[in-house]
Amino acid sequence: MQLTYAIVGTGALGGYYGAKLARSGKEVHFLLNSDYEHVKANGLRIDSVDGDFLLPSVMAYPNPSAMSPVDVVLVCLKTTSNHLLEELLAPLLHPNTLVILLQNGLAVEEAVARHFPQAQVAGALAFICSGKVGPGHIHHQDEGRIIVGAYRMDRPELLEQVSSDFLAAEVPCQLAPDLATARWQKLVWNVAFNGLSVVLNTTTDQILKNADSRTLAYELMLEVVAGAKANELPLTVKFADKLLEMTDRMVPYAPSMKLDHDARRPMEIDAIYETPVRHAMSKGYHMKKVEMLGQQLRFINRQNGHD
Amino acid sequence: MQLTYAIVGTGALGGYYGAKLARSGKEVHFLLNSDYEHVKANGLRIDSVDGDFLLPSVMAYPNPSAMSPVDVVLVCLKTTSNHLLEELLAPLLHPNTLVILLQNGLAVEEAVARHFPQAQVAGALAFICSGKVGPGHIHHQDEGRIIVGAYRMDRPELLEQVSSDFLAAEVPCQLAPDLATARWQKLVWNVAFNGLSVVLNTTTDQILKNADSRTLAYELMLEVVAGAKANELPLTVKFADKLLEMTDRMVPYAPSMKLDHDARRPMEIDAIYETPVRHAMSKGYHMKKVEMLGQQLRFINRQNGHD
Repeated sequence: MQLTYAIVGTGALGGYYGAKLARSGKEVHFLLNSDYEHVKANGLRIDSVDGDFLLPSVMAYPNPSAMSPVDVVLVCLKTTSNHLLEELLAPLLHPNTLVILLQNGLAVEEAVARHFPQAQVAGALAFICSGKVGPGHIHHQDEGRIIVGAYRMDRPELLEQVSSDFLAAEVPCQLAPDLATARWQKLVWNVAFNGLSVVLNTTTDQILKNADSRTLAYELMLEVVAGAKANELPLTVKFADKLLEMTDRMVPYAPSMKLDHDARRPMEIDAIYETPVRHAMSKGYHMKKVEMLGQQLRFINRQNGHD
Repeated sequence: MQLTYAIVGTGALGGYYGAKLARSGKEVHFLLNSDYEHVKANGLRIDSVDGDFLLPSVMAYPNPSAMSPVDVVLVCLKTTSNHLLEELLAPLLHPNTLVILLQNGLAVEEAVARHFPQAQVAGALAFICSGKVGPGHIHHQDEGRIIVGAYRMDRPELLEQVSSDFLAAEVPCQLAPDLATARWQKLVWNVAFNGLSVVLNTTTDQILKNADSRTLAYELMLEVVAGAKANELPLTVKFADKLLEMTDRMVPYAPSMKLDHDARRPMEIDAIYETPVRHAMSKGYHMKKVEMLGQQLRFINRQNGHD
């Protein structure tokens, strides 16, 4: 039997992955906010390094109460909107619905699992450069693979089916043997480069070109590795070294938090900084420089008018 | 016998303190750079909360080779110019000249003492709000006291005479029983508020109003207290608490490093961040957040075109 999908948050991530699934023949329902009218009338347009395409007609909804339960909900909101999730998800869930939180940071699944005790809950991480460039118009610049891992599931075979659906939709998809490890691994990069690009008002190449900020970025990465180790997860210094080398080879890049800041949108400070610091602290390890970066970001976020 | 003075660096500090000494009848020779012609022709103008005054005629020099040795040299340059000191000081010293480094930071006396083994060397700290608002034109907004302490002196009575001269010039002046302690005490404030005001692009009141940056500022202060303690100096948490309360009562204030940054002048990162971090580390204490602030400032300084 085919799985049905709902995309909560049809932006740079949700618009892209939802459109790929829909193009491959899956039933995909898109929850939209400000873009609803435009997408209802014109569909979704994806400009992609892998080939542009248009979905002239998609199933679009202005609010979840207009939608029916589906088999899989893909949450593609920024974590800064997660306080809305209980309300947004309730109409979309049948007794076996799988909710996948395709979001950055740590422990973003906790609240959903607690509020919906019957739901299958998983997490996912996107490795992609994409952005929304207009209403219903996504520009996919590079990469695109996702990693999916179970958070609380008694039907793990569901994840394999989702993974097959993504592969059939030409989205490289891997199953993570351990979601927490995958989340900490992504944090190693996100903690260092998201925050520093905002506080230093710069891009990845400039951070790495300057000896002092390069050292600082590397120290932040090592604190995250140590924080993960304190939580008994198998991260290594070598992993950080490889990420640093990879970033050296990247084009000058403004991480998503820098784009959020420049657009005066709220930044994902809880999920990427405060929760990891708390998790490490609970095991006796104080990520001091990571904590400081989070404190600085919190100040800047407040100056931008957000809590 | 009256002491003769030379002011090296006739700016916000040197212009003010030199003018006060000259007005009180002391022989004061002013070394100037870009303001030389203007001051030679028009003298020094001090707009002060304690009463404005003009010195229409001062002994001004465009370079030290035009000057003669004096009894006391007051170095009022930013520490970022200290690589020039050997050359600037040489013509001004007789065998017993006292060199007083009226500068922020730690261990700024070291190089002078090493290069001029016969000189009497002292340090001083200014607690003053003043700025140069035009050529030879200083605006003194608030405070004004200085603390002076011996660094390497076999004629300590000289400092008492200097202190008397300052008092006679209506400059509150105290002798510090221990210069290193006085320098670390001033660092408690400078480390926190100079750096954060630059990195967060803000003023003292905003730093203290936001819970996260307030916590961070306080943590930075406590790291400096701990760094001083590691060096067996008698700083206390209570001292930091008092400074924080004092800063709460201050008007919104842009510290000198913020003004330097905004004017794209080099920032005093070595003296205020790197040297204290090194001194604490040499005693086994790692000032991690202070170190991180220094790393961030180093990046920003480089972006401003400085090493």
